[in-house]
Amino acid sequence: MKEIIEALLKFRNDRDWEQFHNAKDLALAINVEAAELLEVFLWKEAKDVNRDKVKEELADIFAYAFLLADKYQFDVKDIVFEKIKKNGEKYPVEKAKGTAKKYDEL
Amino acid sequence: MKEIIEALLKFRNDRDWEQFHNAKDLALAINVEAAELLEVFLWKEAKDVNRDKVKEELADIFAYAFLLADKYQFDVKDIVFEKIKKNGEKYPVEKAKGTAKKYDEL
Amino acid sequence: MKEIIEALLKFRNDRDWEQFHNAKDLALAINVEAAELLEVFLWKEAKDVNRDKVKEELADIFAYAFLLADKYQFDVKDIVFEKIKKNGEKYPVEKAKGTAKKYDEL
Amino acid sequence: MKEIIEALLKFRNDRDWEQFHNAKDLALAINVEAAELLEVFLWKEAKDVNRDKVKEELADIFAYAFLLADKYQFDVKDIVFEKIKKNGEKYPVEKAKGTAKKYDEL
Repeated sequence: MKEIIEALLKFRNDRDWEQFHNAKDLALAINVEAAELLEVFLWKEAKDVNRDKVKEELADIFAYAFLLADKYQFDVKDIVFEKIKKNGEKYPVEKAKGTAKKYDEL
Repeated sequence: MKEIIEALLKFRNDRDWEQFHNAKDLALAINVEAAELLEVFLWKEAKDVNRDKVKEELADIFAYAFLLADKYQFDVKDIVFEKIKKNGEKYPVEKAKGTAKKYDEL
Repeated sequence: MKEIIEALLKFRNDRDWEQFHNAKDLALAINVEAAELLEVFLWKEAKDVNRDKVKEELADIFAYAFLLADKYQFDVKDIVFEKIKKNGEKYPVEKAKGTAKKYDEL
Repeated sequence: MKEIIEALLKFRNDRDWEQFHNAKDLALAINVEAAELLEVFLWKEAKDVNRDKVKEELADIFAYAFLLADKYQFDVKDIVFEKIKKNGEKYPVEKAKGTAKKYDEL
């Protein structure tokens, strides 16, 4: 993941874009890209979707997510593992198994 | 990243949630989490934001993004590098340097 | 508002699009349009934004929101007034005045 | 619609919230509410969704959309009719009938 982040930072710095990349606008950018991914699925079933478009939009989401992680100096592995642990408490296996209910409805 | 994806899949399979995780709903989930991140910044400047909340919401975005990548068997590093290359063509340094304009306005 | 909804339904029915407009995909469409609005503001301050673009994206949000309201036979005035009442209880003037805090932090 | 907007402005002004309601943050708020609507449909089919939740989240979207329209002094009916006209050119009946394709794929 280090390599990915370095490549993204190089791309950004070559273009002098750090000035625009404050954390709030990076959060906006993730939302914009997430919705472009969503648009690939709009009015369709998952099986009818163009895989290459999914690939491109998902790559954009990862790109901005990595840039925001870098901005806060988060280690992606650490924060995801931390969240998995927390979610494990909100969704204990014996209650959450086989249901899509939210934790406050379990 | 392999380790992250394996931990996420284990969490999901322990709860028998694969049945809900079709690609379209994973795209929805990414949008829901992206907007929860956005909400952390709502009505605020980036500097006044709670860092721990950013961490948690960003972790959720990564989690669903990795699960969707796994669903399509995308290698995250590959797809981000591919996109960086493509964006390099859309945003050549000499045109894009120092401006936040979209490629179709450059 | 009746006139707006009738014009939107005529547009849709002329194109035989009701088959695609299930409630879930209408919710997706609202998100896609909301993010296009968000993109107008990306990397910018509100004062530097193109007013005509805001107008178009906001119109799209209204269009899908009216179509979803019609799908459930909601009266827009009724549901907004109902929500204002509910929000008045969550955000009583004496507590909420002058602060952007969420109700659970008041 | 005038009545709705007046009620929303009164609610906002009673709480002294205009200071937070710049156009950019209103666009964020619309996205946050749109995603809360989306979450109602997450992992579900439209028919299994709680109608009252849809009603509340849709009301929130309308509320912020009306506030943003007011901020720019847009007449909602005018801008939606303008957009319908424009979309009629992008999606002529003879080409768009019965297909969910985007205009650039027609």
